[in-house]
Amino acid sequence: MSISNSRDEPTKLAEIVVPLLGPSEAQEVLLENGGMARLLHGALSQDDCASYLLDGQICLVAGSDYVRGTGFILFEMGLLDYYDIGWYLAGANLSDIAAMGAQPLGLLSVVRYPKQMDDESFSMILQGISDCCRAFGALNVGGDIGTATEVILSASAFGIVEPGALLTRGGAKPGDLLCISGPTGYAGSAMKLARARMHDLHSSYGALLSHWKRVAPRIAHARLFAESGVVTACIDTSDGLKAAIETIATRSSVGVSIEGSSIPIPPEVAEASQLLKLDPLELVLGDSVDFELLCCVKEEGLPQLVEECASRELSLIPIGRVTGEAELVINFAHESRSLPGVAWRHV
Amino acid sequence: MSISNSRDEPTKLAEIVVPLLGPSEAQEVLLENGGMARLLHGALSQDDCASYLLDGQICLVAGSDYVRGTGFILFEMGLLDYYDIGWYLAGANLSDIAAMGAQPLGLLSVVRYPKQMDDESFSMILQGISDCCRAFGALNVGGDIGTATEVILSASAFGIVEPGALLTRGGAKPGDLLCISGPTGYAGSAMKLARARMHDLHSSYGALLSHWKRVAPRIAHARLFAESGVVTACIDTSDGLKAAIETIATRSSVGVSIEGSSIPIPPEVAEASQLLKLDPLELVLGDSVDFELLCCVKEEGLPQLVEECASRELSLIPIGRVTGEAELVINFAHESRSLPGVAWRHV
Repeated sequence: MSISNSRDEPTKLAEIVVPLLGPSEAQEVLLENGGMARLLHGALSQDDCASYLLDGQICLVAGSDYVRGTGFILFEMGLLDYYDIGWYLAGANLSDIAAMGAQPLGLLSVVRYPKQMDDESFSMILQGISDCCRAFGALNVGGDIGTATEVILSASAFGIVEPGALLTRGGAKPGDLLCISGPTGYAGSAMKLARARMHDLHSSYGALLSHWKRVAPRIAHARLFAESGVVTACIDTSDGLKAAIETIATRSSVGVSIEGSSIPIPPEVAEASQLLKLDPLELVLGDSVDFELLCCVKEEGLPQLVEECASRELSLIPIGRVTGEAELVINFAHESRSLPGVAWRHV
Repeated sequence: MSISNSRDEPTKLAEIVVPLLGPSEAQEVLLENGGMARLLHGALSQDDCASYLLDGQICLVAGSDYVRGTGFILFEMGLLDYYDIGWYLAGANLSDIAAMGAQPLGLLSVVRYPKQMDDESFSMILQGISDCCRAFGALNVGGDIGTATEVILSASAFGIVEPGALLTRGGAKPGDLLCISGPTGYAGSAMKLARARMHDLHSSYGALLSHWKRVAPRIAHARLFAESGVVTACIDTSDGLKAAIETIATRSSVGVSIEGSSIPIPPEVAEASQLLKLDPLELVLGDSVDFELLCCVKEEGLPQLVEECASRELSLIPIGRVTGEAELVINFAHESRSLPGVAWRHV
C-alpha cells in the first residue's frame, strides 16, 4: 500500500465508482400485486439524491451524508457542541431532499459513540437530530446506535415529490435565470475566522456561526420550486456557491453568466473579509456550507415565483443567467472574469 | 465526563432515545396533489426498519446499519478482505429489508476511507457492495464517499411491500409455529474459533467463514412470507437466534416453547463445538450473525408455506411454538429449561 496509489475523491468517483455502477443493473422492481418501482436517477446521475417512481404515482428520493461532527475544527475549538452537530447531521441530510424538490418523510441516523462518552453528550446529539427533524417536518425514525472507537455520525433522509415535479441538477436551459434562496458565505467565514483564531475580533461572530449551529434546509423553497413548474434545475450549496454553479453547468451542459453586483454580500461576511484580507466574493462563492438552494428558473415564470416566495416571506435572489456558452463568467461594470473562490473538495 | 455516567446501548435506547422520540411527532405528510404518506412504524416500534404507507397503495420500508468492517477481528486476522466487508455491509442492510417482507429497491452506502488507503482496497469495498446488491436485486444508488481517519462503513437500504403484507416483530400469536429459514451458528462458530486461534484445526473452516464473506439476505423467503398471508411476525437473526426469539416474544407479548431436537445443528457447527468444548446449542442459539429469518406462522398455513418454500428450493424449519405463557423454554426428552446461549449485545 502506498500513497502514490491513492487517488483523491473526485478521481476515485470518476475512475472507480462510476465504472462499477455500469448501465447493466435492473432498473425496475415489480411487486406481485402489479405494483412497480422504477429507478429515475441512480448513482450515475450524481445528484443530491437517488430517485424512484413508485407505482407511477409518487416519486421517492433518498440520499445519505456522513458528517465529520466531532472532527469539525469548530467543534474541536468548543464553538459547536454535541447538540449542534446532531442538528447539523439532520439538517445536511434534509437539505439533499430539499434540493430534489421533495417533502421530507424521515431521517435514519447512525450514531456511534466511544464507550466512555457520557450520557449527556450522547443525549445532546440525539436531541439535536430530533429537534432538527421536527423543525422541518421529517420524522426521526431511528437507525443504528452503538459504540465505536470514535464518534461516527451518518444519516439517510428520504422524501416524496409529485412525479414530474422532481428537481435535478441536469435540466437547466440557456436563457433560464439563476437564483439563490438566500445569501451565502456565512458558514465559510465562520470557519476561516476560527482557523485564523480571529473569531473573537468579529463584531457578530454568532450570526456567522448560527449557519453551522442551526442548519436550515430550504424545504419551503423546495416545495414552491417543485410546484411552480418553472424551476428547471436545483442543487443545494452544501459545497459552496461556486461548486453548486459548476455542478449545475456540468450536469446540464450549459454555461453561466453571473452578475457580480447581484450576488448578495451580507455585512457579516463583508466584515469577515476585511479581517481575513480576502475578496468578499471569495467568501460568498467559495467553500461555505450554507445549505441554500441554487436554482434555474424559466424567465417567463420568474416574476410569479418571486411573488410566491415573497408572500411566504421567503427570499429568492436572481444572480445571473444560464447560457449556451461553455464557460462560467462573472460580470462587473468594467470587466468579466472567471468565478473566484475555491470550490469545496471533500478530501 | 466519567465512565460511570455512561450507560450501555440497551439502557441508552430505553432511557434516552425512546423518551426523545415521543408520541408527539406528526405522523402524516401531505403532498399538494393529494398524495399522502403515513408513518406505520417509526423508531418506537424498534423493528428492523421504519415503514410508511404511501398513497395508501405501497408500503415503503427503510433501515440503516453501521458495520465495523475493518474492526471485525476476522478482518484484522486476514480472514476477511475488503471485498468481503463491502459485501457484508450491503448484505446486512438488505437483510433488514427482508425481515419486513419487502422487495429491496436500493442501497445507499457511506464509505469513508483514510487518505493513505490504496485504490485497490477502496475498489474492493465498492465492488463487494455492488456485487451483493446485484445478487439480491437491489440497486446500488450511491451515497457518500470521502476521507476519514479510519474506514467507516454504513448504509441504508429501502424497499417496498404490498400494504397488509408488511411483516413486523409484533404480530405473533399463541399457537403459531416458530420457523427459521435455515440453520444458524456458522458465523458465531467462525468468530469463536478465530478468537481462540483454533480456526486452522477445523476441517472445513471455509464453510463457516462463508457466512461472513457472502452474507445472503433471505429476500426470496421474505417475499414468500409476505405473500403467504400466514406469517404473523418476522425478524432476522443478525443478533443470533436467541436474541431473535427474545425480541419476537417481547414485541409480540408472547412466550415461546422450542423443541430442542428440532433445532438444526450443522455438522460444521458441531465440529466447532467439540473444538471449543461448548454445547452446540450455545453456538446455534448464541451471538452469530447468520442473517436467517425467524418467523411465526399460523398453524393451518404452515403445510402450504413449507411446500411453496420447497418448490423454490428454500428451506423452512419449524423449531417450536408460540405460547401464551410469559416464558421462553426449550424442551428435551427429559427436561425443559430456559434458552442457552448469549444474546448479542451491541456494546
